[in-house]
Amino acid sequence: MEAEIITIGDELLIGQTIDTNSAYFGQQMGSIGISIKRKTAISDHAQAILDALAEAFSRVDLVIMTGGLGPTKDDITKKTLCTFYECGYRRDEAVLAHLEQLFAARGRLMMETNQVQADVPELCETLHNAVGTAPGMWFDQQGKVLVSLPGVPGEVYHLTEERVIPKLKAKFPLPTIEHRTLVTLQKAESLLSRQLESFEASLPSHLSLAYLPSFNMVKLRLSQTTESNDTAMAGDIDRYFAKLQSEIATDVYCLGDIDPALYLSKYLINNNITFSTAESCTGGWVAHRLMQAPGISAVYPGSLVAYANDVKSSELGVDPSIIEANGAVSEVCALAMAEGVRKKFGVDLAIATTGIAGPGGGTKEKPVGFVYIAVSTANAQLCKSFRLFGNREQIIQRSSNAALWMVKQLLKMPADSGL
Amino acid sequence: MEAEIITIGDELLIGQTIDTNSAYFGQQMGSIGISIKRKTAISDHAQAILDALAEAFSRVDLVIMTGGLGPTKDDITKKTLCTFYECGYRRDEAVLAHLEQLFAARGRLMMETNQVQADVPELCETLHNAVGTAPGMWFDQQGKVLVSLPGVPGEVYHLTEERVIPKLKAKFPLPTIEHRTLVTLQKAESLLSRQLESFEASLPSHLSLAYLPSFNMVKLRLSQTTESNDTAMAGDIDRYFAKLQSEIATDVYCLGDIDPALYLSKYLINNNITFSTAESCTGGWVAHRLMQAPGISAVYPGSLVAYANDVKSSELGVDPSIIEANGAVSEVCALAMAEGVRKKFGVDLAIATTGIAGPGGGTKEKPVGFVYIAVSTANAQLCKSFRLFGNREQIIQRSSNAALWMVKQLLKMPADSGL
Repeated sequence: MEAEIITIGDELLIGQTIDTNSAYFGQQMGSIGISIKRKTAISDHAQAILDALAEAFSRVDLVIMTGGLGPTKDDITKKTLCTFYECGYRRDEAVLAHLEQLFAARGRLMMETNQVQADVPELCETLHNAVGTAPGMWFDQQGKVLVSLPGVPGEVYHLTEERVIPKLKAKFPLPTIEHRTLVTLQKAESLLSRQLESFEASLPSHLSLAYLPSFNMVKLRLSQTTESNDTAMAGDIDRYFAKLQSEIATDVYCLGDIDPALYLSKYLINNNITFSTAESCTGGWVAHRLMQAPGISAVYPGSLVAYANDVKSSELGVDPSIIEANGAVSEVCALAMAEGVRKKFGVDLAIATTGIAGPGGGTKEKPVGFVYIAVSTANAQLCKSFRLFGNREQIIQRSSNAALWMVKQLLKMPADSGL
Repeated sequence: MEAEIITIGDELLIGQTIDTNSAYFGQQMGSIGISIKRKTAISDHAQAILDALAEAFSRVDLVIMTGGLGPTKDDITKKTLCTFYECGYRRDEAVLAHLEQLFAARGRLMMETNQVQADVPELCETLHNAVGTAPGMWFDQQGKVLVSLPGVPGEVYHLTEERVIPKLKAKFPLPTIEHRTLVTLQKAESLLSRQLESFEASLPSHLSLAYLPSFNMVKLRLSQTTESNDTAMAGDIDRYFAKLQSEIATDVYCLGDIDPALYLSKYLINNNITFSTAESCTGGWVAHRLMQAPGISAVYPGSLVAYANDVKSSELGVDPSIIEANGAVSEVCALAMAEGVRKKFGVDLAIATTGIAGPGGGTKEKPVGFVYIAVSTANAQLCKSFRLFGNREQIIQRSSNAALWMVKQLLKMPADSGL
């Protein structure tokens, strides 16, 4: 099954807004076996919308359209859809009741411009938008389906998952698609793909492997596509996923489509391991990534950014002679920072970073991107140097991934902790 | 002058990659008076590329295309362009020399798959890519121009600014477009636009105002479009920009198209004002935003994340009885945190945050999004509560913008510090 996406809005064309909805649709539709053949972004002009619609329906039977549904004058999608389907408006009572309720709850008066949001093309079925004012619209004419959604990402996610996907599954005969994802850190995509060459070659045709790379991290997603009632092959994905894990066992950080920092912070919460960080070059980024899990305060008292050398000494107890003899970017300094912050906050686990994030400050021996990371508990400690690439922001992000990796090694954290 | 963009790559359609290049082109082309009428994303298939090209050239005279220029088998753009222009390949000696130099510098052997990158369609002129291996390509046939660029963002930026824009300016008669941008914080777009209604109505037709909103921040961009040699109106933009500033004087944070955190950190560096932060609910995000300027280490010794109440007391000297009587989310606690961190690090300026970032922890009196921010120097201090909306991440971002705003008030920082 193939579909196209049309996004409407001048803000996309002049570059005021980055289109994240399209990537979201690609993922969501892919997960139910619908592949996106084309995405078109056009301006808020009736003729542009009419042309794009006619062209898309000449190629596919399903079009998803976003944007242009607000109450302001720029937003002309509904009017244009009346033209396209040669129909008038009707007032949708369910949408009107929802609007009245929303405005009452916010203690605001409903204006005529707001009521207009309840007027929809006669031929559409409305999709209840519980998180916004503009409803989604579903047109099903001559076997061709058009889904029109507002452009606000939160509303797109809600409408797609709660309304559109169930209706698409009911309307079209779709295959069953399942995914298994794992996260690797520290190994380049090209090395992983070489290592997995024979595994990939061994995959039966209903299974496929995708590499989703970002800084020092590659997510591997195994997908299985089967016809709805074919149970014979249903177990294949788990067998091959187990095989995939064993092929690259030492590179797997965790199972699931999850941010590894979130995985680690949940592991720390669940195992009641208190932690803190002492960061120089990463400037608090490691702590920031680890505090995103709700409930983190139970194991995270606080942390320190120690940029200046004298803060490393006064706050973390790093002996100034260590810094004098080895520099702040050194293994002994990183280890002393970790030990210092662990004792300062009385925590089980400490992470310390010290390095050159750039753009300045590099030397021949310690170039930009040269970073030491130390992790320590009461019983063990580990320190390693890394040579990382990219701009300042990328070096900071790669450093934080390296820190996550070191914690896993020190704690022997399992890749599947049943979270 | 109108143009279209075509992006090639399955990774865009399946949602593996978010397309940031298109927004970049929209901005860059807009800045030289070329407006993008349509953007189309298609897969790595020859027929899809040929169709999209023919359709785009039926509407406009300039098409910019990205992606599909790597050495791997998926990348078929060049072959398809030979089909489209009915020409063969030629080996480009300048590109080959550049590749040989690149590989030699990295100490790597050049493979046949790499040499192929020097083979380009006969009819194109190559655009030297100083930051990558694949050249840009410029086709100019029957008055219609096609620019084909690799998809890597860093290479897109380089080629667009260094090669494409100068050639477009030479080829097409373009208007002169100038922009003046300012940053406002803390006031909603809808309130600003009401306040600026008569200003907008007073704008002559060659001037226009755009609102570029994000969390608690709205950038206002005034643009002037004039024919190349029309000097009579050239000064208008500055007159109206001055008028714009005076209309909303108290809402302007800084002049220029700049992150306000970067503006503030440069101001602190230039005025040698040392600073630190004590953050609870924002978890280091304020410090992180302020440490992005190169050279920040001269005024930033380090900072503290004080999540737990006993860390607020032990590290920042907040009297436990203050927290007991008022809670950690209180004006007195925020002020004591700021004072504490200012003295701890011996800095001129301190910023403290304490609040409920959510999703849990809210009460009727102090709901999720309720945040105190305190700023202090040796001579003055300021504390204010904010009621912020959104999810955890948005509340943290809005809190950090509120903190930037408070520092401006305390230091009486000018909007134009000549940075």
